[in-house]
Amino acid sequence: MITIYGMRASGNCYKLQLLLDQLDREYRWVEVDSAHGATRTPEYLVKNPNGQVPLLELDDGRRLAESDAILCYLAEGSPFLPDDSWLRAQTLQWLFFEQYSHEPCVAVARFIRRRLPHDHPRQADVPALLQRGAQALAVMERHLVGRGWFVGERYGIADIALYAYTHCAGDGGFELAAFPNICAWLARVQAQPGHTPMQH
Amino acid sequence: MITIYGMRASGNCYKLQLLLDQLDREYRWVEVDSAHGATRTPEYLVKNPNGQVPLLELDDGRRLAESDAILCYLAEGSPFLPDDSWLRAQTLQWLFFEQYSHEPCVAVARFIRRRLPHDHPRQADVPALLQRGAQALAVMERHLVGRGWFVGERYGIADIALYAYTHCAGDGGFELAAFPNICAWLARVQAQPGHTPMQH
Repeated sequence: MITIYGMRASGNCYKLQLLLDQLDREYRWVEVDSAHGATRTPEYLVKNPNGQVPLLELDDGRRLAESDAILCYLAEGSPFLPDDSWLRAQTLQWLFFEQYSHEPCVAVARFIRRRLPHDHPRQADVPALLQRGAQALAVMERHLVGRGWFVGERYGIADIALYAYTHCAGDGGFELAAFPNICAWLARVQAQPGHTPMQH
Repeated sequence: MITIYGMRASGNCYKLQLLLDQLDREYRWVEVDSAHGATRTPEYLVKNPNGQVPLLELDDGRRLAESDAILCYLAEGSPFLPDDSWLRAQTLQWLFFEQYSHEPCVAVARFIRRRLPHDHPRQADVPALLQRGAQALAVMERHLVGRGWFVGERYGIADIALYAYTHCAGDGGFELAAFPNICAWLARVQAQPGHTPMQH
């Protein structure tokens, strides 16, 4: 059975929970408190030298890091990752968009506002994160005009990856009501069979 | 023939030049001066709503953004992207590492030091970028112990993606001499057939 090292309240980890539940696949979850240094211990750094969750571990001990790489690996051969080469390329485009243009603003604003004290120096980063994050949300909003899903005609791992931190963007101070196509898409994701909510 | 919209001095764009030259594939290059706002014009935003280079355009007008997604698409079926599912997953792991943990520090430090005035407020970001970038380089250095390449037994797109901003990390203030395995790997990459240097 595969093992996921993850933190339930992390959107990057939640992506894997959501996909695995929708694949109806069994897995072992090992909770790692990334918010309190548990990914920086010598024991954990042997598992993932980059000190992050989530991490996938196979029965034979092989390990894979990076949430969106794990999504691709687990979704291979399932309806959540298209076979068509162009649709796969578009899926990857949105996964890289998520990790480069979206998560570093939308997730980080949420982290600072939820986890750090009101007088922490990083609170000063929030206005710039909200501005850049809103640009990423605007790209998503425009893409969803006339489309049900991010890639092709069906729900897949691009939707899962983008859903993880978009649905809780309000925690970071984003006004999702300004993005009606995103709100409608979030509701479609939530209505998918086997949808599991994130543990906040 | 495919078209690449890119800026020659950008590592993210250079990745595609390097792969296409090594694939011996013909392409049209349209230079877009991202450093002076050319990716933010209304005309360009129609092509890539996220306002970035590089961008791949096919003959039929279809477009693909995100440098590492384009690498995967172009390398499909070539020796630069393995067929084996685990090796592909590891390739993606390193591509996401590059875009999340490496490029935002190593490339951004270079951008600030080369392109912005000495008294620009973002110069204050450089020390933190050097610290975080050195952590990413340390992860690479450790991975290369006893290994010739990032994934499997051969040169591939994980090496190309990581080479792009690592080989010019000195421009941003990194001391590559502190990473002997990286230096040896850079020399191996440069010795590959069809290697083209980046235009600085």
